[in-house]
Amino acid sequence: MSNNLLSNIYYPTDLRKLEEVQLPQVAKELREFIIAIVSVKEGHLGASLGVIELTIALHYVFNTPTDLLIWDVGHQAYGHKILTGRRENFDTNRQLGGISGFPKRTESPYDAFGVGHSSTAISAALGMAIASNLKGDFDKQHIAVIGDASIASGMAFEGLNHAGVTNANLLVILNDNAIGIDPSVGALKNYLTSVKNGKNPRQNNMIKSLNFDYSGPVDGHDIFAVIKELRRLQKIKGPKFLHLITTKGKGLKQAEENQVKYHAPGKFDAKSGEIYLKSEENLPPKYQDVFGLTVLDLAQKNQKILGITPAMPSGSSLKFMMEAMPERAFDVGIAEQHAVTLAAGMATQGMVVFCNIYSTFLQRAYDQIIHDVALQNLAVIFCLDRAGLVGEDGATHHGVFDIAYLRCVPNLIIYAPLNEIDLQNILYTAQLGLQNPIAIRYPRGRGQNAYWRQNNFGKYQPIAIGKSVCLKTGTQIAVLSTGTIGNNVRQALKNLLEPEAIAHYNFAFVKPLDEKELHLIFAQFKSILTIEDGTIVGGFGSGILEFASQNNYLIPITTLGVPDAFIEHGTVTELQQFCKIDVSSLELLFSKIIL
Amino acid sequence: MSNNLLSNIYYPTDLRKLEEVQLPQVAKELREFIIAIVSVKEGHLGASLGVIELTIALHYVFNTPTDLLIWDVGHQAYGHKILTGRRENFDTNRQLGGISGFPKRTESPYDAFGVGHSSTAISAALGMAIASNLKGDFDKQHIAVIGDASIASGMAFEGLNHAGVTNANLLVILNDNAIGIDPSVGALKNYLTSVKNGKNPRQNNMIKSLNFDYSGPVDGHDIFAVIKELRRLQKIKGPKFLHLITTKGKGLKQAEENQVKYHAPGKFDAKSGEIYLKSEENLPPKYQDVFGLTVLDLAQKNQKILGITPAMPSGSSLKFMMEAMPERAFDVGIAEQHAVTLAAGMATQGMVVFCNIYSTFLQRAYDQIIHDVALQNLAVIFCLDRAGLVGEDGATHHGVFDIAYLRCVPNLIIYAPLNEIDLQNILYTAQLGLQNPIAIRYPRGRGQNAYWRQNNFGKYQPIAIGKSVCLKTGTQIAVLSTGTIGNNVRQALKNLLEPEAIAHYNFAFVKPLDEKELHLIFAQFKSILTIEDGTIVGGFGSGILEFASQNNYLIPITTLGVPDAFIEHGTVTELQQFCKIDVSSLELLFSKIIL
Repeated sequence: MSNNLLSNIYYPTDLRKLEEVQLPQVAKELREFIIAIVSVKEGHLGASLGVIELTIALHYVFNTPTDLLIWDVGHQAYGHKILTGRRENFDTNRQLGGISGFPKRTESPYDAFGVGHSSTAISAALGMAIASNLKGDFDKQHIAVIGDASIASGMAFEGLNHAGVTNANLLVILNDNAIGIDPSVGALKNYLTSVKNGKNPRQNNMIKSLNFDYSGPVDGHDIFAVIKELRRLQKIKGPKFLHLITTKGKGLKQAEENQVKYHAPGKFDAKSGEIYLKSEENLPPKYQDVFGLTVLDLAQKNQKILGITPAMPSGSSLKFMMEAMPERAFDVGIAEQHAVTLAAGMATQGMVVFCNIYSTFLQRAYDQIIHDVALQNLAVIFCLDRAGLVGEDGATHHGVFDIAYLRCVPNLIIYAPLNEIDLQNILYTAQLGLQNPIAIRYPRGRGQNAYWRQNNFGKYQPIAIGKSVCLKTGTQIAVLSTGTIGNNVRQALKNLLEPEAIAHYNFAFVKPLDEKELHLIFAQFKSILTIEDGTIVGGFGSGILEFASQNNYLIPITTLGVPDAFIEHGTVTELQQFCKIDVSSLELLFSKIIL
Repeated sequence: MSNNLLSNIYYPTDLRKLEEVQLPQVAKELREFIIAIVSVKEGHLGASLGVIELTIALHYVFNTPTDLLIWDVGHQAYGHKILTGRRENFDTNRQLGGISGFPKRTESPYDAFGVGHSSTAISAALGMAIASNLKGDFDKQHIAVIGDASIASGMAFEGLNHAGVTNANLLVILNDNAIGIDPSVGALKNYLTSVKNGKNPRQNNMIKSLNFDYSGPVDGHDIFAVIKELRRLQKIKGPKFLHLITTKGKGLKQAEENQVKYHAPGKFDAKSGEIYLKSEENLPPKYQDVFGLTVLDLAQKNQKILGITPAMPSGSSLKFMMEAMPERAFDVGIAEQHAVTLAAGMATQGMVVFCNIYSTFLQRAYDQIIHDVALQNLAVIFCLDRAGLVGEDGATHHGVFDIAYLRCVPNLIIYAPLNEIDLQNILYTAQLGLQNPIAIRYPRGRGQNAYWRQNNFGKYQPIAIGKSVCLKTGTQIAVLSTGTIGNNVRQALKNLLEPEAIAHYNFAFVKPLDEKELHLIFAQFKSILTIEDGTIVGGFGSGILEFASQNNYLIPITTLGVPDAFIEHGTVTELQQFCKIDVSSLELLFSKIIL
């Protein structure tokens, strides 16, 4: 690997010392550097490869970090990180204590705004630009780089709609590669494609309608063209819009050809690009696949079933249903708000709607859950993938608030399966016809049972709404867990020499609570311990405290879970250790309690 | 009042028996009917007057309720309600046990979707239209009527963006009157105005870009033109868009001339339109004015202060600052998501941003609070007006979930003032430079002190973050209240003959809790009672339960507040009675406790 130029670039000031003609070489080296490290250390690949030329051009033309640069979502910011002081520790990317996979303000002054969720960049950059204007800093540049999937989200439109009536020094760069994590969808995407293909006037009327100075489309891999256009735009005041055409995965053949797979490919051969496939034969299934395969199976039998995903067909595994019955399963783009109210509208017409949204992204549709679904008591089935600690994606992506923010919503059932069999059965139960909306939360990653597919798939058992299950009897202390963290409890109990004192109950239903069983538990045990992989502020444990308070039970209750702080990135096990809800911590705690 | 035609219309079937030439008379009578009742019973006036012709035309042309009609927000649906079975009880509008001020599915099959918050209609109607297609019902019509302020919200864009790539039988009618509650803002509004004024090609390219069949602009008060266009559109399959130009308040001169005031004018003279002004001289100030006047005063002294409102300059009273310093106070339109992240962007540049959003509408920006503000610990100052029970606007508008959904957000301070002086002082304190974001929640309506302006305005006292205040000592029981509901506690205690047993603490800070004082309280008292005007599921009371659990205090704790159910409309006092947190209920409870 030749990296004669890159190895001397520590900060953009070093980059700016180079001649423009040297920049293609920097681009080449930067691509190789990213491929070399991501192939071994894993992470997001395709997005960063697609913006190598743009990244170099931006730091070459603009005076970062004085000029403020915001990468929307941030999957594409690896090149940016490497050019801004983080080349030498880039191999710690996404590891505990290492650099974050996303731009992060506390990590570098070059990261003007922390990102992770989509479509925030325009609003944030506009806020900065307005502030600069008020401070009399009229030359400062404020740049938001946003993809074509992100710009179709409502929040981005709100930002554009406001920016267009300001004189803010804002440059919005549309990184148009026609794909987010999955291929982009929607009418705006079709429109942008027609502009790109010259089927619409070169002048983009839609963006001009919002009062932006539109320029493009420009080839985003022609670094000289990009630099030239950035220099021209640098001199123009007010809101500007540059439409760049790029290729996700640019420079690695397989990544260009299979953009969905190479979004975050895992380990691969840096030279050939070949992904190192692990045999999945003896592995338990991913929860997302339990969802995707089960919903497809149920939909084949129940004509009323529809599926919705906001831009996560692959990540949610709704793709199975989308491929088999495209007229009944919908990717609505990055539009969580719309996804939820669309589901509500369908539900009014008697449809059984599975609306699959990652726990962290459901925060985007909180009002719609309350106002459009729960208030009307429409029996939409929310499937919250990536609930709990998600690992390497870190603070922006953990699904640790859902129990707390959903528990206060009237009419809503909340269910967290212990394992893949429970998940399958609650999906089955939900489509039989509930009287209420339900939120089913399950984690990233794999279940427990390698032979689930052979032994259990399609063998449905209805689940009684609101019932808890005693997994282990005991004499002194009752442990109440909800969700898959209960498997840590089971393992910790198995590891104990004398587990007789401790009973274990699975409260898959966070709401409604199994009050009948709770009365028995509070009558029988000396103390209660609750465990969840979510915040302990207002979570499942608080629900148990509320029950105790309302029923005048005065025994000690300890609540375990995620503390009241944002949790950084690391493996799920490392983060569980931090929260003291991993198997070893529980084992230690249980031993102490018994003594 | 001549209402020969209207008095025979109970349902749209009656309307459809009339000749088209009779419809202007129906419009005249319907306007008079609405004015007559709203002038006495109060409610939303201008929006409904503006769509009288459209309302009649829709029910005349379409086969409601088989064809599905959704009114976005619903302020404009009075005419709809009167023509669909609710003429005779329209005088119970917004009263306890009476009809709702908004369309509501449980009230009538003609109310296809419950509304209240803006910009939901396109998503809901699209969901219904897709469901109809799948059921093979290709002739069914699905109509969303949406205002020009609402359509600029991100969620509406998401709906349009999806609808444009479907073959759904969806008709979006843009009711373009250039005003929401306050005048519309933003680039899209300017664009629509240019279309309206013929300064752009009659064909609306922006809407056509999203693949809609665009028609208009049409005069929304020419009932024959509207009917003709609806009949034409009725025959066209797929997504259609009708741009109607209307005048808010049409038919009542004062309402047309002062559209902001006549949005919901209170009582007025039905003939002259004159509003019956109540003397405000001896009334305590509205909380919104305490906010608006205080922020203006502070901003005059602190150049870093900026203000943001999403479309509520009047309702929030940010208008005072907007008028005095328009370059530093922003109405961003119905764009709560953008408002919050804009504030975050400003805060990164050292600005002190007061972002004022009604409690119920902050649900729209939940992810932005977590992901863009709290995670980065940016010291944005959120001012949550209309927190708690709001009264006649009912279930869609109560601000009763905010404590529960905010308490689980790390880094965030939550403060609920007891009165207008506390509100003033926390606004002052917040702009001195906090290390954390803060959410300040205060109710709709007026404070306690009629002479606040003369005696207190501008006399600032800093508030120590996280400190509680003992309002009354006692011997047996400690009542911990947060927010203005504490005034009910004070009054109830005053009414008691022997209040010695009961102490009263004001926990304005829901987070961080005053743990030092709590330790003293738990050591001193036999039992604790918490009171809040928010949900008891995960609310302030749950925070006290969590404190007790974490510190092994085993004394009885009772939590009072809003029960786990959606609360209907009525006066605030009536709703407090329902929740048993009104003065009389508290007095009764306290008497029993003492016995």
